[in-house]
Amino acid sequence: MNSLVSLVGSGPGDPELLTIKARRLIDEADAVLHDKLPGEQIIETIPEEKREDVGKRAGGERTSQEYTNGRLVELAEDGKRVVRLKGGDPFVFGRGGEEMTYLADHGIDFEVVPGISSALAGPALAGIPTTHRDHASCVSFVTGHEDPTKDESAVDWGALAATGGTIVVLMGVGKLPDYTAALREAGMDDETPVALVERASRPDQRVVTGTLDSIADVADEEGVEPPAITVIGGVVGKRERSEAHQ
Amino acid sequence: MNSLVSLVGSGPGDPELLTIKARRLIDEADAVLHDKLPGEQIIETIPEEKREDVGKRAGGERTSQEYTNGRLVELAEDGKRVVRLKGGDPFVFGRGGEEMTYLADHGIDFEVVPGISSALAGPALAGIPTTHRDHASCVSFVTGHEDPTKDESAVDWGALAATGGTIVVLMGVGKLPDYTAALREAGMDDETPVALVERASRPDQRVVTGTLDSIADVADEEGVEPPAITVIGGVVGKRERSEAHQ
Repeated sequence: MNSLVSLVGSGPGDPELLTIKARRLIDEADAVLHDKLPGEQIIETIPEEKREDVGKRAGGERTSQEYTNGRLVELAEDGKRVVRLKGGDPFVFGRGGEEMTYLADHGIDFEVVPGISSALAGPALAGIPTTHRDHASCVSFVTGHEDPTKDESAVDWGALAATGGTIVVLMGVGKLPDYTAALREAGMDDETPVALVERASRPDQRVVTGTLDSIADVADEEGVEPPAITVIGGVVGKRERSEAHQ
Repeated sequence: MNSLVSLVGSGPGDPELLTIKARRLIDEADAVLHDKLPGEQIIETIPEEKREDVGKRAGGERTSQEYTNGRLVELAEDGKRVVRLKGGDPFVFGRGGEEMTYLADHGIDFEVVPGISSALAGPALAGIPTTHRDHASCVSFVTGHEDPTKDESAVDWGALAATGGTIVVLMGVGKLPDYTAALREAGMDDETPVALVERASRPDQRVVTGTLDSIADVADEEGVEPPAITVIGGVVGKRERSEAHQ
């Protein structure tokens, strides 16, 4: 049997939002490499003897991407069935692309199992339609947490504003004042509705809303903390609550 | 017990890419309203006696959105457990927002169960990372199949090109010559790599590649047919194939 590494998305955190395939691969795996992003509720369903936390090492420092890449190859070459479990979708701001490239360069066969990105689950679980034929013909996902090794923010907030579509910012809490200001400077209306969805799909999910002008203050007052996604655009005004979406 | 309608995403078509929750809700439902988009492989797993195809009526004409909305309310008021099964994710170009609003307006409780959008599954299952820290700081989803009741295309292709991120076009076959031309006119490089992923996740999935300049001809020559998504951007050049991604 050829060795195979499965790059698997865990979805937003609710174990029921794993795909059937993700669940099967985790159950069949010899080793599951994960960090904290899949969330405790999912991680605790994986037998401890096959879990490897590559989010941090024993000493407390972060595991390097190089270590994780090397460990995937090592386990696969040992003939282990390996799952690399990533929060959300492996290819949406998850560095799954780099892991795939490394595996391919080392002759390890791999498969990618998509997961539900929190960029889609966040709005959905808050009762906010990501697209709407009267309000948004496109949706863009962007990260609020830029690669710190880049000299300049690579995100063109002006171009995103100009699309007229919904903007969803992942890892959107820390830099909220910066990018809301950038969008206002680019001419986006101060009154554009904005929602923050904190801990989407988890038992303590919370939604707070405001406008492009007010949301940074609202987030401060409400003590919104990561993980949270930010939804910006007219669709936020279409939000409906139900018993399932408090 | 209160009546509850579940708006459920089916994912891209592979029954193993249903979420555990979607599978459970389908299995527990009294009625599952669906159209053709979830795909045959998934639809045939639903017992025939609880399926209602709202994609077309017996006579062959399309069922109206109004009929579907009304039928959801009628079943819920009869105390049935109802699943509205939608291809991909209910809120990504799926009119799930309109169904949610109708249910809320009629006092019917609902829940939204996100699914894996083909906009994410398509690239992933073709071995193309949707984002990459060296190639794409954002990704935008747009539909190639504009609402025909709109006077003008509401999609600003120039703004999308200006984001510098990956562009994923759903329902992207029919208008491929139009929007590739619009992107070139907006200044996007003719040599930008483009991939078409046909029938993502299904047994006969196929990927064809070209450039912004060539892809419309390639699609013609290869006979690419819907459903297919189009991936445009530097990340297409990072594609890796494996035994799992032919």
